Amino acid sequence: MFDSAKVEHKLDKAAFKALEPSLREDLLNVQFQLIDQKKRSLVVLIHGPDGAGKGAVLNRLYGWLDVRKLQTLTYERPCREDDGHPPMWKYWRGLPPSGEIGMMLGSWYHKPLCDRVLGRLGRGAFVAALEDVRRLEAMLHAEGVCVLKLWLYLDAAEARRRLKALSEGPYRRPVVREWEELDTAKERERLARAAEDVARITSTDFAPWHVVPASDADYRDAMIGSVLLEKLRAMTANGANGGVHQPPSPTQVPKTLPAFSILSTLDLTRKLEKPDYEAQLAHEQSRITRATTSPAFAGRGLVVAFEGSDAAGKSSTIMRLREALDPRHFRVYPISAPSDEERARPYLWRFWRHVPPQGRIAIFDRSWYGRVLVERVEDLVTPDQWGRAYGEINDFEAQLDRSGIVVVKFWLAISEDEQMRRFAARETIPYKRFKLTPEDWRNREKWPLYEAAVTEMVDRTSTDLAPWTLVEAEDKRFARVKVLRTIADRLDAALAAD
Amino acid sequence: MFDSAKVEHKLDKAAFKALEPSLREDLLNVQFQLIDQKKRSLVVLIHGPDGAGKGAVLNRLYGWLDVRKLQTLTYERPCREDDGHPPMWKYWRGLPPSGEIGMMLGSWYHKPLCDRVLGRLGRGAFVAALEDVRRLEAMLHAEGVCVLKLWLYLDAAEARRRLKALSEGPYRRPVVREWEELDTAKERERLARAAEDVARITSTDFAPWHVVPASDADYRDAMIGSVLLEKLRAMTANGANGGVHQPPSPTQVPKTLPAFSILSTLDLTRKLEKPDYEAQLAHEQSRITRATTSPAFAGRGLVVAFEGSDAAGKSSTIMRLREALDPRHFRVYPISAPSDEERARPYLWRFWRHVPPQGRIAIFDRSWYGRVLVERVEDLVTPDQWGRAYGEINDFEAQLDRSGIVVVKFWLAISEDEQMRRFAARETIPYKRFKLTPEDWRNREKWPLYEAAVTEMVDRTSTDLAPWTLVEAEDKRFARVKVLRTIADRLDAALAAD
Repeated sequence: MFDSAKVEHKLDKAAFKALEPSLREDLLNVQFQLIDQKKRSLVVLIHGPDGAGKGAVLNRLYGWLDVRKLQTLTYERPCREDDGHPPMWKYWRGLPPSGEIGMMLGSWYHKPLCDRVLGRLGRGAFVAALEDVRRLEAMLHAEGVCVLKLWLYLDAAEARRRLKALSEGPYRRPVVREWEELDTAKERERLARAAEDVARITSTDFAPWHVVPASDADYRDAMIGSVLLEKLRAMTANGANGGVHQPPSPTQVPKTLPAFSILSTLDLTRKLEKPDYEAQLAHEQSRITRATTSPAFAGRGLVVAFEGSDAAGKSSTIMRLREALDPRHFRVYPISAPSDEERARPYLWRFWRHVPPQGRIAIFDRSWYGRVLVERVEDLVTPDQWGRAYGEINDFEAQLDRSGIVVVKFWLAISEDEQMRRFAARETIPYKRFKLTPEDWRNREKWPLYEAAVTEMVDRTSTDLAPWTLVEAEDKRFARVKVLRTIADRLDAALAAD
Repeated sequence: MFDSAKVEHKLDKAAFKALEPSLREDLLNVQFQLIDQKKRSLVVLIHGPDGAGKGAVLNRLYGWLDVRKLQTLTYERPCREDDGHPPMWKYWRGLPPSGEIGMMLGSWYHKPLCDRVLGRLGRGAFVAALEDVRRLEAMLHAEGVCVLKLWLYLDAAEARRRLKALSEGPYRRPVVREWEELDTAKERERLARAAEDVARITSTDFAPWHVVPASDADYRDAMIGSVLLEKLRAMTANGANGGVHQPPSPTQVPKTLPAFSILSTLDLTRKLEKPDYEAQLAHEQSRITRATTSPAFAGRGLVVAFEGSDAAGKSSTIMRLREALDPRHFRVYPISAPSDEERARPYLWRFWRHVPPQGRIAIFDRSWYGRVLVERVEDLVTPDQWGRAYGEINDFEAQLDRSGIVVVKFWLAISEDEQMRRFAARETIPYKRFKLTPEDWRNREKWPLYEAAVTEMVDRTSTDLAPWTLVEAEDKRFARVKVLRTIADRLDAALAAD
């Protein structure tokens, strides 16, 4: 999840200088509104590894906001007085009154996360603790205390490097380590899983997590300033306590910052020559045949979802997959407009009905992701509907995973130019003409909207259990082999774990 | 919780015959609206021990509703086809289309509850499973599938008797046992705890649990019919999908049925003669002194909340409690209107700030329950605010319990006549006059509203961890001893468990 934040984001000095003055002005204006209304308060939770700049962010916000109505709440180190009280007591004590902003380090996520990562808390107890947190935040929100949750992202190597520099540099100030002893691979794996539980359970519509790329300080601060601005605007837009507000999706890049597409990270020039292709395709197909006909697979199942631009090669890739499968054991479901029966029920119903029993395979040519792709882009559903779909889909896939089904998801990516070439070819080849509709041409105009939708989809639904695989599909041969190899790898890993 | 349902509720034949025709007419009318609108569907979950009449309820509803848009969904016994699929698959398959009603036996609560009670599922995993259910129901609701959850309550002895009669009677039809092997005390205790987790976690505003007293078939069916009617009315009141609707609180008795007050179950004639009183008071005080000065108490804490009618004797009871305590270790907090500082924060803040550290004692003369008592009755808060307060309060007390604090709660009950006598006495005794305000006289007019509020409060916040003790306070001596004995018992039990 949050894959975008893991890509390096930078803002050069000039760009930052250009946007800072208006950002500061807007922030101050909306803060004054908050103070005047005196209806709500805001708690900003700042998390992330040491070295990501939590202190620097605080300093910047102190520079940008009216400091008389701003306070820092730090709970990273236990304090004697707090210790005799229930764990939540200290947080309650520090709650800012309405009109004010509190910036919190070491929030109520701190202890459950540490305990989970260090193995002092089992998974069930951790999930239960997160649910307590979710209820707490719901109550605070309903009572007028809004919560903005920031996770500063730094990759592990960079974080280590910075931490070392900090503790050895000339100032050598004491460094608060949020993840002390986090050394073993097991702990790092637990952190990754725990972070997904956190995102899944506590990313509510009123208090979603914002993951902020933190390697570049200017980008980091500009993003935080923009997100904070949106939050304050939503909070002050309707003075009434308990009113509804809809800030933009947490994984959307604020408008003040350069747009970002996760697809831009792909190298579309990757290709495979024919002899290599044939050998590798045959190899991967045989791996898939072996895995799906093994006795262990009888207690498993496989669901493959194909998404991608029009003409990206979904059908022809599915054909290569089919060749590796026993026709008695799989079905392909092409997904287009829902039937009447399907329309009369929740949108996931049409996919649940095709969930395979043990030992079987379902291949979806387009899938439940239509909700957050075409239906979102074409305004067929409200922002509320596609906004909550991410969590609903994660729950759906988690249930499949839990009953032994391997879930594999592909986005087949081609360039706009390549799509144009393929459309043109389809028009001239008679037996391919049925594949091209006026709608396909219309979709091309919405390319940037689709890119934004795909980026957010990957950020919010690429989970540990069911990760997205982005496929460079400019070269069909390369794409097919990558798809089949991914499926074979996932199957082997699952069966090896049994 | 749901203490009201545990008291026997009856409806005589004549009363049932009197209300049945209009209930049937109203039900049919609103069902036709549901069918016409075709916007939403309803799933009615029916749970409870065998013998409580789940089948009879279904039959009655088949008699009352238009059966063409009604279906029964039974999942109590595993079916072969379902088994190969993920556990939720069968429920999805059965979802009624919009406009229709499905009545479900053996719903998605069935397996987690059985597994928990039989010890196959740990507490953390159980809570996590309930959270999955909560998210499922939230999604269904948002997608237009409303959920009505009924729990038929029968006390254990009665349930056993009926089950025996069923399996031995002349018809001897096969009986589906929902709680097979539920024999040991440990399992029964786990069921009680599990039921509270279910109520706490899955009683959402859009799909709360309704606990239906089931010993009298007519009362049971009349209540179910009324609750179903309210639900259907709320669902059809606003056709738009995702609209907001506010049916009455789940623990309020429907207006069609006789009002019920939990206070009516008290025997206010109970009294204690002076010599007995003095001996028993001294005994309970010494038990409390011993417990609160024991070394084990240093790792514990005590919070006592006193609520009750005006002039019920809270202050004088607190005085007797104080006498047993080391003045360095306790504080009494009289709760009246909040200060400015308190008003600027969530309502629980003013109580959190007084939560005692380990080894200390806080006594609240009126408490956080003001939210669901005076603030509710006086319309100082919206139904939404006091409606969600029950869950928030349960969470608050659960946190105190988790950090070792013993939470004891009392409602001191007197009759209206006795209150009048005490008011009159206060007016004539000069040093007691300050205790009587014009507000006290006004409150008397709202006696029935307070009774309803108290009943619902007890139903929804008398938990295993922090049960309510209703105190017959017509005789002050009896009340004081009962209060002190309850505190001493709770302390001894807690310290014995350490």
